Amino acid sequence: MEDITTYLEKNSNRIMEELFGLLKIPSISSLSEHKDDMYRAAEYYKNALLKAGMDKVEIFDTPGHPVVYAEKILSPDFPTVLVYAHADVMPVDPIELWQSPPFEPEIREGKIYARGADDDKGQGFMHVKAIEYLVNSRQLQCNVKFMIEGEEEIGSPHLEDFCQEHKDMLKADIILLSDTSMIAPDTPSITVGLRGLAYIEVEVAGPNRDLHSGLYGGIVHNPIHVLSRMIGNLHDDHGRIIIPGFYDDVRELSEEERIEFNLAPFDEESYKKSLGINCLWGESGFTPLERIGIRPSLDVCGIWGGYTGEGSKTILPSKASAKVSMRLVPDQDPKKIANLFENYLHEMVPNTVKLKVTALHGGYPYLAPTNIPAYKAAQKAYLKTFGKYPIPTCSGGSIPIISTFDRVLGIKSLLLGFGLESDAIHSPNENFSVKNFFKGIETISEFYIQFAHITKD
Amino acid sequence: MEDITTYLEKNSNRIMEELFGLLKIPSISSLSEHKDDMYRAAEYYKNALLKAGMDKVEIFDTPGHPVVYAEKILSPDFPTVLVYAHADVMPVDPIELWQSPPFEPEIREGKIYARGADDDKGQGFMHVKAIEYLVNSRQLQCNVKFMIEGEEEIGSPHLEDFCQEHKDMLKADIILLSDTSMIAPDTPSITVGLRGLAYIEVEVAGPNRDLHSGLYGGIVHNPIHVLSRMIGNLHDDHGRIIIPGFYDDVRELSEEERIEFNLAPFDEESYKKSLGINCLWGESGFTPLERIGIRPSLDVCGIWGGYTGEGSKTILPSKASAKVSMRLVPDQDPKKIANLFENYLHEMVPNTVKLKVTALHGGYPYLAPTNIPAYKAAQKAYLKTFGKYPIPTCSGGSIPIISTFDRVLGIKSLLLGFGLESDAIHSPNENFSVKNFFKGIETISEFYIQFAHITKD
Repeated sequence: MEDITTYLEKNSNRIMEELFGLLKIPSISSLSEHKDDMYRAAEYYKNALLKAGMDKVEIFDTPGHPVVYAEKILSPDFPTVLVYAHADVMPVDPIELWQSPPFEPEIREGKIYARGADDDKGQGFMHVKAIEYLVNSRQLQCNVKFMIEGEEEIGSPHLEDFCQEHKDMLKADIILLSDTSMIAPDTPSITVGLRGLAYIEVEVAGPNRDLHSGLYGGIVHNPIHVLSRMIGNLHDDHGRIIIPGFYDDVRELSEEERIEFNLAPFDEESYKKSLGINCLWGESGFTPLERIGIRPSLDVCGIWGGYTGEGSKTILPSKASAKVSMRLVPDQDPKKIANLFENYLHEMVPNTVKLKVTALHGGYPYLAPTNIPAYKAAQKAYLKTFGKYPIPTCSGGSIPIISTFDRVLGIKSLLLGFGLESDAIHSPNENFSVKNFFKGIETISEFYIQFAHITKD
Repeated sequence: MEDITTYLEKNSNRIMEELFGLLKIPSISSLSEHKDDMYRAAEYYKNALLKAGMDKVEIFDTPGHPVVYAEKILSPDFPTVLVYAHADVMPVDPIELWQSPPFEPEIREGKIYARGADDDKGQGFMHVKAIEYLVNSRQLQCNVKFMIEGEEEIGSPHLEDFCQEHKDMLKADIILLSDTSMIAPDTPSITVGLRGLAYIEVEVAGPNRDLHSGLYGGIVHNPIHVLSRMIGNLHDDHGRIIIPGFYDDVRELSEEERIEFNLAPFDEESYKKSLGINCLWGESGFTPLERIGIRPSLDVCGIWGGYTGEGSKTILPSKASAKVSMRLVPDQDPKKIANLFENYLHEMVPNTVKLKVTALHGGYPYLAPTNIPAYKAAQKAYLKTFGKYPIPTCSGGSIPIISTFDRVLGIKSLLLGFGLESDAIHSPNENFSVKNFFKGIETISEFYIQFAHITKD
């Protein structure tokens, strides 16, 4: 029997070519012009899964982008793993900051550069290749299912219905996914906490057209001023969010939990240096790790209004808009938070303008258990491939669908992330370490072996 | 001798066609891609001026866009009028709001729709046609010069140097221009006050790339938050600008002056209705007319940062920017105000981000005398063509070059505006009433006749 290291070495060129084929598809779920690309990405995954040895693969239509489902059922006595991944990616702008085109993957200094290289095509593809190895080497002793959606980056609006409609088909002992990061190349970690999300668009409308800033300035209220002032009133001077009721449901950690939480390594100096900033910011009274892990946050992701071109245009604009993302922690409810936000804006807005608030999507925060067989199998797998146990961490990011899986399917999730903070996901020059890609395949393969073993005991 | 009404009736189709030819040239001075169009517009004016009977026409290059100069010197005993106009126009976005393409002029319901229809091609062309009539009917008893620049909408950066270099050539008794509005179709007015301008671009730079709002939100300061908060701190709750020292040099009017100033008609209800707003806004303690006429104002003309496309993208952006226009009144100095603005921002900005402030252009406010022969000649001209005397008004807008003419050439300006508030200058669907266009030609012709007469006495 060929060991995995030898197998991956022998097949590395082919595997990388196959991944590049997937990365070349501009499957941006949020832009309607890429609707066909979402089908192309689904087809690509379908073929890759069949090639890897999955027995049955089907593409399901949804009211949005399609879902790829695959299964390989070997025995009713084996445990069942449901792999989740997403085939869609974030938009690419600002495009001019990319050193190589986002959908023409290339390797530079040991890293694959492309939109989706890490999030989540690179990490999702590791699972396909792990199964390929296990099937080829006849070591697979789990039943395996795959569910690959195309709407994760827009909040998975149709996956809850899909789960409701296919509860039986999706039955499994654990959901396995790689859509998170590890602490450092030599410090593996398993994500056990995810923040929730409330994403909201705000529009302030003033006069019915752009006006001359000289002829109207001083007499008509400027929507940019109104919007800016409201945004300026979302945080106090201590970085605390001042939406009334915002913190009401935030679960406070005990002193012991906080101490344990802060054991994860965090090098503030190198962190600041890598981002090119002078100092950190945030809610006072909490450490940086706490502020992204167990405390909620609010960020304006985009703002626009009036003239934004070259040179000067002297107008008082008709409208101003912003997109706001709020990251939530247990036990905040995204719908309740969206309402509090909307109420607060309506309270603040003057009657000189009209306010429109649209909730775009949301998701619940998630806390994963660490005392289940799958988690223990993962610990053993990491010990074998990295030589050390993984550290449990809370990610500041959100994968809203994870809490939906728990609620609808009753299945817990195990998040084995092989990305790095420097992978620039959602940003220009997204990348993924070639080494981590192959290390991920190894660790995932080993997980299946350990999981079969543990559940047999 | 043919009277002007008959002349304009006979030639109206030809004149309108000639104006349309000028309007079709997309001479947007602020966009470098239109550099050649600025030459085309200058050439077009050159040919029109020669056709109108000017004796000598020359195009002068500048480090920016060209200046058209023309003259017709009839006698050293005649007074000399220097006509100023500009051949450049504002950008056209948001283009989707135009009902007809901005550079394909068309007449709908008695109005010419095109970018520049009013500001300033339509109004500038009236002067060419007035001279054409006076020359053809042998009634011209003034020396006439034209100076038509191509950089008014970007702050006339090279016209001061041009004036310095050609002081002798430009000698005149009065500068005549039409680049302002009148109060209403049946209420002629002469603009005697113009606000100055300081136009500034602000950039707030945070991390060296767009970041994932989940992984970094709560720990890295968001440049949009910083910029919004600073903009929110530019006005107090009473609409007063809170930049320290901003009002120091503002000339306060006496109670009598204020009473006279407020005599101009202003119908607040129809004003609000035409703009689609519920209520006005501005510095408390001053009437709407005062707030746009004799009080300074500050408007953010544009703001941008982060993701502004369709749907949601969860980022913490690297940068946020805004363009700010401040309208100034006597005796505010645009350079001093730009410095106060910059200092105030530097005082406010936290050390989590980097601030860049760039002054784009500026201009001094202007107050015109009403006791000079040219003003009196204009009063008589309006009395003849409109049946009533014009009302002196202060415009909220800025024509920074007017105060430069006074300072460099020592010549006062007379601003005969035939635009209307509803002309939507600088906005989509800019238009100019056909009736006002021809009425303007009549009034300007009559001005030359009256001016020659008055100065002869």
